[in-house]
Amino acid sequence: MFKTELAAATARVQARFDVIFADLPQNPITEGMRYALEGGKTLRGYLVLESARLHGLDPAQAELAAAAIEALHAYSLVHDDLPCMDDDDLRRGRPTVHVKWDEGSAVLVGDALQSLAFDLLSRPDCAPDPAIRADLVASLARAAGITGMVLGQAQDIAAETAAQPLDLDQIIALQRNKTGALIAWSAEAGARLAGADPAPMRAYAQALGLAFQIADDVLDVTGSAEVTGKQVQKDAAAGKATFVGLLGLDGARARATSLIEDAEAALAPYGAAAEQLRQAARFVISRDH
Amino acid sequence: MFKTELAAATARVQARFDVIFADLPQNPITEGMRYALEGGKTLRGYLVLESARLHGLDPAQAELAAAAIEALHAYSLVHDDLPCMDDDDLRRGRPTVHVKWDEGSAVLVGDALQSLAFDLLSRPDCAPDPAIRADLVASLARAAGITGMVLGQAQDIAAETAAQPLDLDQIIALQRNKTGALIAWSAEAGARLAGADPAPMRAYAQALGLAFQIADDVLDVTGSAEVTGKQVQKDAAAGKATFVGLLGLDGARARATSLIEDAEAALAPYGAAAEQLRQAARFVISRDH
Repeated sequence: MFKTELAAATARVQARFDVIFADLPQNPITEGMRYALEGGKTLRGYLVLESARLHGLDPAQAELAAAAIEALHAYSLVHDDLPCMDDDDLRRGRPTVHVKWDEGSAVLVGDALQSLAFDLLSRPDCAPDPAIRADLVASLARAAGITGMVLGQAQDIAAETAAQPLDLDQIIALQRNKTGALIAWSAEAGARLAGADPAPMRAYAQALGLAFQIADDVLDVTGSAEVTGKQVQKDAAAGKATFVGLLGLDGARARATSLIEDAEAALAPYGAAAEQLRQAARFVISRDH
Repeated sequence: MFKTELAAATARVQARFDVIFADLPQNPITEGMRYALEGGKTLRGYLVLESARLHGLDPAQAELAAAAIEALHAYSLVHDDLPCMDDDDLRRGRPTVHVKWDEGSAVLVGDALQSLAFDLLSRPDCAPDPAIRADLVASLARAAGITGMVLGQAQDIAAETAAQPLDLDQIIALQRNKTGALIAWSAEAGARLAGADPAPMRAYAQALGLAFQIADDVLDVTGSAEVTGKQVQKDAAAGKATFVGLLGLDGARARATSLIEDAEAALAPYGAAAEQLRQAARFVISRDH
């Protein structure tokens, strides 16, 4: 059952963070970092663990890489929630870091979480072969920075002041960077850890990432803050181009379903061993938060 | 002549950034990144290049590591200058990134500069041996994050609300993290690139880093905004504990001089080959900005 596996991944990554944080200084910034890492679905960490298993590794061998992508993702959320960015007070059903502490602390918490991600990937425990560690760092740095996630954020900001709203191709390109890059890295990480070619996981991850974002847009319209744990209908209120706006609610749902079929098809070479990842793909469009 | 060497390091690193940025997307965030990398003294990059030369490498082989530490340093300045942090409008004689663009862009510019630092270190061009690349990433991640620079920033914030001002030992510990960690990484990087033990450079770098910070405090009292290119007497106005406040102006200068003697002594094993680094040490306490 995918939901059980996802919960197991959350527990595994959180337990690993307990060990990691026991070795770090104790101060309000580390408290904020730990807080920002709690309460999520650990979807990216799960993808790392499961793709590692699919490539013949014990999930325990992929824990630091899973923790790294969760730290990277958490940094992006803490900074995205800042008043000068999306200005969100609520995340995962709790006050955001800058609300619970203050803005300056939230900047530092995010900054330190990004450093932590690269710290974890470069520890010998992450992968005994330094070439694999260097490969994980290189690919994550490019997925996170101005060639990946931050590029998507820059495209998002540019769209706000553009004369024309984004068309479907542009919003797909934007989301491939903004959320797709980290999801792709997660799915590819198991192959990288095993020293295998990460390319076969890419088609799966790209379809999954886009479906995930379309599902987010659908939830923004249909969800409640109580269930999603964050403010809803913000995008529509801000006049942003969304998949729902471009395709309609039914069209967006149909597109997400079609993408999940693509994602499942991409896993064909792995046969029955990839059943968990097929379930994961179906989950992202059926979730209610 | 050290000043000539420093200017040559600046030119070398800036030329490398021109090549690096030619391969990156063109948008306001990359413009802000490039802007934030301009106009500095490149002291950290210089230390990387010179310690590489001291360890038998051609400086060209250390360019990516030098660019990486300058990117990491620039990220920290962009975020430090934010209104929710130090709230500075002026840096290196020009408007800070959030003034020239906006706060949200400044957050992203800093975030992307941090990612870029790890991107550069993990490129095969940085060091052909992946074990060395992984070592550079591991040491920089720890020097930058909550075990290094951000820890120093956290200690700085904690000091602002503490009942007692910091004593000398506490301010030394704070500065060893806040500014010392990146300076130490820079001086050690040449040894790491050569696969040599970085420990002998550490005593040099720690004394140098502390002297650098004391000189900064002295400049905060004696400098002019016109020459330093940033606001002065901010620390004293904010009631922060400073080396000048604790030791007096003459005491602070004497302490800096004594530290530079320590730094020069630490270079004894390298003999005459380390003359440039001795000059660099003397420079940090004689500079006027």
